[in-house]
Amino acid sequence: MTQTIEFFFELSSPYSYLAATQIHALAERAGASVVWRPFLLGAIFKAQGASLPASNPQKAAYMLQDLGRWSRHYGVPLNFPSRFPINAVKGHRAALAARRVGGEGALESMALATYEAYWAHDRDIADPEVLADIAQEIGLDRDAILTQMSAQEVKDELRDHTDAALERGVFGAPSFFVGEQMFWGNDRLDFLEQAVST
Amino acid sequence: MTQTIEFFFELSSPYSYLAATQIHALAERAGASVVWRPFLLGAIFKAQGASLPASNPQKAAYMLQDLGRWSRHYGVPLNFPSRFPINAVKGHRAALAARRVGGEGALESMALATYEAYWAHDRDIADPEVLADIAQEIGLDRDAILTQMSAQEVKDELRDHTDAALERGVFGAPSFFVGEQMFWGNDRLDFLEQAVST
Repeated sequence: MTQTIEFFFELSSPYSYLAATQIHALAERAGASVVWRPFLLGAIFKAQGASLPASNPQKAAYMLQDLGRWSRHYGVPLNFPSRFPINAVKGHRAALAARRVGGEGALESMALATYEAYWAHDRDIADPEVLADIAQEIGLDRDAILTQMSAQEVKDELRDHTDAALERGVFGAPSFFVGEQMFWGNDRLDFLEQAVST
Repeated sequence: MTQTIEFFFELSSPYSYLAATQIHALAERAGASVVWRPFLLGAIFKAQGASLPASNPQKAAYMLQDLGRWSRHYGVPLNFPSRFPINAVKGHRAALAARRVGGEGALESMALATYEAYWAHDRDIADPEVLADIAQEIGLDRDAILTQMSAQEVKDELRDHTDAALERGVFGAPSFFVGEQMFWGNDRLDFLEQAVST
């Protein structure tokens, strides 16, 4: 029986970006499938009264070092964006719009392309026109994406994912579920892989 | 040239305990040496105005799961203590006292024995008599430990380690240094090992 990994990701989270670059290969090795679930981490922090991960300057400075180490370890580019943190509401809606336009695989492709645009090429993923450009670059219909991005169903879907994350105990990103087992952070991908390989 | 790992640990930190069980073997594999530095994490949090790692119930619940995964992964016992968090000032002083009584290796032995007493056997490591018992169990002179634990030099040494940690950007435990490169968390031991192996 194929196991399913639910991947709760936030586009403005660098550790979610790192995980996004690895999850496809992990699932292939384990013979598992991945369901990509964009959600709004800021809404979770707000609901839980939590502070941001890099809430003090010492931790922020360390995180830059740490992100560099992961970037080299995985061999993926990571250039800290000039706009950070960024409001990723529209980016998340664009990913959900991509699914409506091109199916489940299009959500993954759109999320990965948006991650790369932001975390490698410093593009402004809060701008709907930039998101439409990205969609077009991966072969999706630009106007269809713009239309779907503002559809009420897409807005509701993003809110539903965020509510579900909150209810299930998510407090950070990336978060993964295998059934009700939760894993937090790209640095728990090994534990996640074990959970779906057994 | 042998590289040195400075290991800043806090006895009340479960992730420091997990790291403490692994660091000797890591150093052996890498041909590096380890200098054990007890410090007061609470003083760092206070100075930086930071909240505790498990500051909300969702994160606390997850951490219990996560600690269980690491415990199974390393094959080391971890039973969450009935007294938590515990004031580890005296425990840290006992580790420093052990060095004065028995040399550098005695600090490591005392720290490991205290970790096991607390994180596996739920002993009250805030009690000087329990600490003296632990010292005796590993072959140190019980009275010598009790005497050294209250020596001003030992108190100063613990404060110096804590001040040094703060100055060098430590914000959590365990923290490791290789020169000025910092690594935070038992989940960065792989990166640490790479840093001392090259």
